[in-house]
Amino acid sequence: MDLKGRKIVVLAEEAFEDLELWYPVLRLREEGCEVTIAGSGSSDTYTGKHGVPVKVDRNSGEISADDYDGIIVPGGWAPDRLRRYDTVKNLVRRFAEQKKLLATICHGPWVFISAGVVKGYTMTCVEAIVDDLVNAGAVYVDREVVVDRNMITSRRPPDLPAFMREIINYLKTH
Amino acid sequence: MDLKGRKIVVLAEEAFEDLELWYPVLRLREEGCEVTIAGSGSSDTYTGKHGVPVKVDRNSGEISADDYDGIIVPGGWAPDRLRRYDTVKNLVRRFAEQKKLLATICHGPWVFISAGVVKGYTMTCVEAIVDDLVNAGAVYVDREVVVDRNMITSRRPPDLPAFMREIINYLKTH
Amino acid sequence: MDLKGRKIVVLAEEAFEDLELWYPVLRLREEGCEVTIAGSGSSDTYTGKHGVPVKVDRNSGEISADDYDGIIVPGGWAPDRLRRYDTVKNLVRRFAEQKKLLATICHGPWVFISAGVVKGYTMTCVEAIVDDLVNAGAVYVDREVVVDRNMITSRRPPDLPAFMREIINYLKTH
Amino acid sequence: MDLKGRKIVVLAEEAFEDLELWYPVLRLREEGCEVTIAGSGSSDTYTGKHGVPVKVDRNSGEISADDYDGIIVPGGWAPDRLRRYDTVKNLVRRFAEQKKLLATICHGPWVFISAGVVKGYTMTCVEAIVDDLVNAGAVYVDREVVVDRNMITSRRPPDLPAFMREIINYLKTH
Amino acid sequence: MDLKGRKIVVLAEEAFEDLELWYPVLRLREEGCEVTIAGSGSSDTYTGKHGVPVKVDRNSGEISADDYDGIIVPGGWAPDRLRRYDTVKNLVRRFAEQKKLLATICHGPWVFISAGVVKGYTMTCVEAIVDDLVNAGAVYVDREVVVDRNMITSRRPPDLPAFMREIINYLKTH
Amino acid sequence: MDLKGRKIVVLAEEAFEDLELWYPVLRLREEGCEVTIAGSGSSDTYTGKHGVPVKVDRNSGEISADDYDGIIVPGGWAPDRLRRYDTVKNLVRRFAEQKKLLATICHGPWVFISAGVVKGYTMTCVEAIVDDLVNAGAVYVDREVVVDRNMITSRRPPDLPAFMREIINYLKTH
Repeated sequence: MDLKGRKIVVLAEEAFEDLELWYPVLRLREEGCEVTIAGSGSSDTYTGKHGVPVKVDRNSGEISADDYDGIIVPGGWAPDRLRRYDTVKNLVRRFAEQKKLLATICHGPWVFISAGVVKGYTMTCVEAIVDDLVNAGAVYVDREVVVDRNMITSRRPPDLPAFMREIINYLKTH
Repeated sequence: MDLKGRKIVVLAEEAFEDLELWYPVLRLREEGCEVTIAGSGSSDTYTGKHGVPVKVDRNSGEISADDYDGIIVPGGWAPDRLRRYDTVKNLVRRFAEQKKLLATICHGPWVFISAGVVKGYTMTCVEAIVDDLVNAGAVYVDREVVVDRNMITSRRPPDLPAFMREIINYLKTH
Repeated sequence: MDLKGRKIVVLAEEAFEDLELWYPVLRLREEGCEVTIAGSGSSDTYTGKHGVPVKVDRNSGEISADDYDGIIVPGGWAPDRLRRYDTVKNLVRRFAEQKKLLATICHGPWVFISAGVVKGYTMTCVEAIVDDLVNAGAVYVDREVVVDRNMITSRRPPDLPAFMREIINYLKTH
Repeated sequence: MDLKGRKIVVLAEEAFEDLELWYPVLRLREEGCEVTIAGSGSSDTYTGKHGVPVKVDRNSGEISADDYDGIIVPGGWAPDRLRRYDTVKNLVRRFAEQKKLLATICHGPWVFISAGVVKGYTMTCVEAIVDDLVNAGAVYVDREVVVDRNMITSRRPPDLPAFMREIINYLKTH
Repeated sequence: MDLKGRKIVVLAEEAFEDLELWYPVLRLREEGCEVTIAGSGSSDTYTGKHGVPVKVDRNSGEISADDYDGIIVPGGWAPDRLRRYDTVKNLVRRFAEQKKLLATICHGPWVFISAGVVKGYTMTCVEAIVDDLVNAGAVYVDREVVVDRNMITSRRPPDLPAFMREIINYLKTH
Repeated sequence: MDLKGRKIVVLAEEAFEDLELWYPVLRLREEGCEVTIAGSGSSDTYTGKHGVPVKVDRNSGEISADDYDGIIVPGGWAPDRLRRYDTVKNLVRRFAEQKKLLATICHGPWVFISAGVVKGYTMTCVEAIVDDLVNAGAVYVDREVVVDRNMITSRRPPDLPAFMREIINYLKTH
């Protein structure tokens, strides 16, 4: 329970990758961290790509990065929707400006690309979007988890243990 | 990575509760623990109640409790199937005889009831099967997680953080 | 039309075994019997495990056993839900107290276990729940249909012809 | 068990109306009648419109009307497929030539239309196909069940009790 | 854009054959033709047999054939529903009386059969309903597209290119 | 039939946007054009996002751009898969080198981005991927269809009539 008092936002939209949302949420709660699941505002509940449901706590427009220690963006098709919302992109930019934790996995980096916060970072992602990430100015490497300053990225669901190990380690030390 | 070298069996069958299987599997891997997903033998792959798939590593008949530190039984409808197999029930009994970790959640205690290993234990479970658990000789309490000697039980998916906190604590101290 | 004037309750909840609900309902109607489909109150319509829908006539809390000749509990996953409701369990107990027909098939006996009415009865059920039935005090036998005083039980959908033959015979003779 | 020794064919194809196939099959078995579920030959198993599966015993081309007392055609979309097969139409014609029981419900009369056996019969059917039935030379009436010589017809699933009451009565008296 | 100023009705109901509705709608729009998608009135939106959705513009009862150049009826199971509505059948009859374009494919001719407008026409259709079409007084031929005066018919989705080629040619020349 | 003798490749993968694949395929066939549906090689059949199936004619690795007049990439999630295959990207590059038609809609431009052929083109696309397109060096405009030399692009299914009008016009004049 070493993260008691810490607060993290996890973004949600339709067709999120089920485990990429739920593993971080449950894992952080296990450490005593307070997790807020934030949607785009299009609905109060979403269903994962495989079918696991999630209820949203708040909409991204109602949240201030000042109140949180970082933001996590799960993959699946949800990022394709999330990146269309100004409230989502503005929220991510505030976290970036405050040098707070930016963590994402699989197709999640699309949201960071559209928020304009990936330039100069060394990152990883699912194979399909490597070109989008590189065109946006990031340095791509193929590793299960990459930590570059306040940016933590992974590739796919089997990387989740490594992804959360680094996120928790980061939060304990920052 | 404090559980490097430790080994746990997680049972799987059709219609497992998606997060109750996957959260323990990923969580233990995060700690460096080796997880074997064991099925009844009816198939090599199963689909969760909501739709998340899992690939089985071994069948319950091919595994010896001697090689593992404990067994976890997720809920959903999978326990209704698992409890029909002698190989499953025998495997659970070997863990019980060796006083190794017996952990289960939601509808999972059905498997322990049919293996005949719950008598005298204080346990929790999903509301629906309380009568079955009590009739089998357990003492039921309504708490997010109950630890009684080598038996750890929880009620439902929102209890997963507490469930795994106790399982990991147990494995680190036994 | 030999059961004209007789009245039977059939319980329904989400994920009932489609034919185990509908065969008794249609069969009794063929005999002129009045059938009331009673739910737990959680919804007005339910969908069977395979997908056949049913509309509920009344909720279990609005029904008095005094007005009926017996109660039938179909299987599937519906019994796992039905047994959680006090109105359902109380209704079953009133039928038991009045020594009226108690009939169930497959996973249906779970409802009778939670209502506390199986002790001392010789019964059958689906393989998966034999231990729960025995732990609750019933004597289990493996036969397509078992009639013990006012209790009639069967195992699975292929037993439906034998199950209804005995139920109709019982109602004609009691 | 008054129909012991009698034999009936029930036709099956993809998207049969679930209860219109299964209620007659189980009901006749309850009376001791031997039921053969016969498909078009396109598959060994079919799934009902709602999702209930059925396994076929024989293909329509392997069956002789000489060995049976009648044929029943359930509704749903299955009749739209069945009527395309010569083996199906020939089988129906043999039953008609031998003046054996021809029973059908809902959209099932399409099969009898294509077999050319409805001319001059008074029949009922689902509202949608009344024009097809009349154009084929039948006399249409709107009743829950219609018995005209060896032809028994009904309209929809709620008519099943009346439908089977007349079929069983017919078989007991012919 | 040679059909600018021309107007066509396309009928829709639940379980329409997805491409048989959408190919004509999009194709006519490509030519500048104004397309009105008209339903039976049972709903504002329908889902195709495979899953493509459609939003209805108007109900068949609110439309006058005087304002349109013709009507197209897609196949699938939608025609089985459409033919039950008097507003649908009356609308088709008005088009027929005015000798305007009557076009249909696959199971669509059922609607024209029930509207009583096929007698004496040479037509084609899906194999399953040939008997219904012939019994209604049409002359059946097996060709990808048949044009007989103001009636244009085809058999199945692969015939759509030929079907629309003739429909567009007809509208350009009438 | 003005495109007789012309040949076009349409790319397919799982979860293609149903109408964005099928409208171009049927439309070109209506003009007499020979269409080859080419997959990535992962399967012989794919299912659209909504459920319409498609059978693949050839794999992208077996096709030479020399034999065709252009290539069309439908949207949906299929582009996310297609862009991972070297055979797909190489095929697109050969079309680009030969200045042959490159047409795409919705999420389809992802494939052209990964093939490296969008730099300097004025293009449109679905809102979600505008940043990816701009980062790859294209000039984005928000119009139903954009023609820039041999590149034709549209945004979403309602643009299909405009999209195909320009594609056919292009093929008739080049």
